[in-house]
Amino acid sequence: MDQNELKKLVGQEAVKFIQDNTVVGLGTGSTVKFMVDALGERVKNENLHVIGVPTSNRTAKQAGSLGIEVKSVDEVDHIDLTIDGADEISADFQGIKGGGAAHLFEKIVATNSTKVMWIVDESKMVQTLGKFPLPLEVIPYGSQQVYKKLAAKNLHPEFRLDEAGKNVLTDSKNYVIDLHLGKIEHPHELADYLIKQVGIVEQGLFLDMVNTIIVGRQNGPEVIQARP
Amino acid sequence: MDQNELKKLVGQEAVKFIQDNTVVGLGTGSTVKFMVDALGERVKNENLHVIGVPTSNRTAKQAGSLGIEVKSVDEVDHIDLTIDGADEISADFQGIKGGGAAHLFEKIVATNSTKVMWIVDESKMVQTLGKFPLPLEVIPYGSQQVYKKLAAKNLHPEFRLDEAGKNVLTDSKNYVIDLHLGKIEHPHELADYLIKQVGIVEQGLFLDMVNTIIVGRQNGPEVIQARP
Repeated sequence: MDQNELKKLVGQEAVKFIQDNTVVGLGTGSTVKFMVDALGERVKNENLHVIGVPTSNRTAKQAGSLGIEVKSVDEVDHIDLTIDGADEISADFQGIKGGGAAHLFEKIVATNSTKVMWIVDESKMVQTLGKFPLPLEVIPYGSQQVYKKLAAKNLHPEFRLDEAGKNVLTDSKNYVIDLHLGKIEHPHELADYLIKQVGIVEQGLFLDMVNTIIVGRQNGPEVIQARP
Repeated sequence: MDQNELKKLVGQEAVKFIQDNTVVGLGTGSTVKFMVDALGERVKNENLHVIGVPTSNRTAKQAGSLGIEVKSVDEVDHIDLTIDGADEISADFQGIKGGGAAHLFEKIVATNSTKVMWIVDESKMVQTLGKFPLPLEVIPYGSQQVYKKLAAKNLHPEFRLDEAGKNVLTDSKNYVIDLHLGKIEHPHELADYLIKQVGIVEQGLFLDMVNTIIVGRQNGPEVIQARP
């Protein structure tokens, strides 16, 4: 099967977990796009009632066009299940997100969800996190000082730039610094250190957060129960 | 002496601590305004060479008009001494800042300073922190969920609104939530809890940070050495 077929199967598998009359967090990314398509079909064919809480304008638009009711995270009482992608998932089911510079909003939605599911292709499954650069969202004011501090601590920071060589801006108009760590041996300690640095708004380690992972394997989607 | 005379004396006392050829963080507030005036006089009369790093446009303008060279926190290598106000200082020299909704930038400048000085009138000196509402800077997206979580934890949150009833926006376009706590018995624990909440950018507890405090007493400025 080619990549798109695998992703489509994963998306179809994921929406089986969505129950009637629930609030569903909708992430962003290529696999998520197939999932939202599949959710739209269930809404149409089964008259499923769900409210979607998207983490990006792109997903909001797609969901709306498919007849899925869309609300903001601030308009719902709670979120039952969030389905999102991930950039890297370790053998003990910790994750890195933020390749799309949206990890702050994604973490806000995930944090307010009863259950979290990640849907990924198998290239994202690794032994130890860190080959994927760890994204930080950083306040522009003082960001040079944050950069210097991270460099002095050997965390190999790099400002994320766009094609024109300018700082990439998040939806909150902050900068992104990626840490090129290679291996993250102690993700909890690192997360704790990073979040306490003044000027760092959020970091891309999503720890102890995912309940279910669906991996697009060559022989079909594999469902992994990571946490109860 | 009236309040303004006291503040002026405090400002004049504070600038005595500024040495030639140093980088000075310049806070914001009514007492700081007198200090910047006094610094301007030293620059003029003594040919003092200092670079000022202001935490607000207001202070930047004032400093510039007095002939003080102004640079951003990202343009300097380090800051030798930051002089700022505070909203409340406890008997063990911990502080609350953020009444002016600028605690994020103020904390960024203070964190990157070798020494920190607070200049205040004596009404700011308290036994225990907490009568002054503790300001949080919060990402608008998801802020209702943050509010609910804080309320459920009995932290008495209140969105800070402007006169038109709209959310006050910080310089980073975030909201401010004030926690009406009355008494903060364990500031370190509270700070640790708050900074780890997804969506809270920064909180207004400035802990273990101030080295020198100058208090405007009726009989003149009192200099307190809080930390070496």
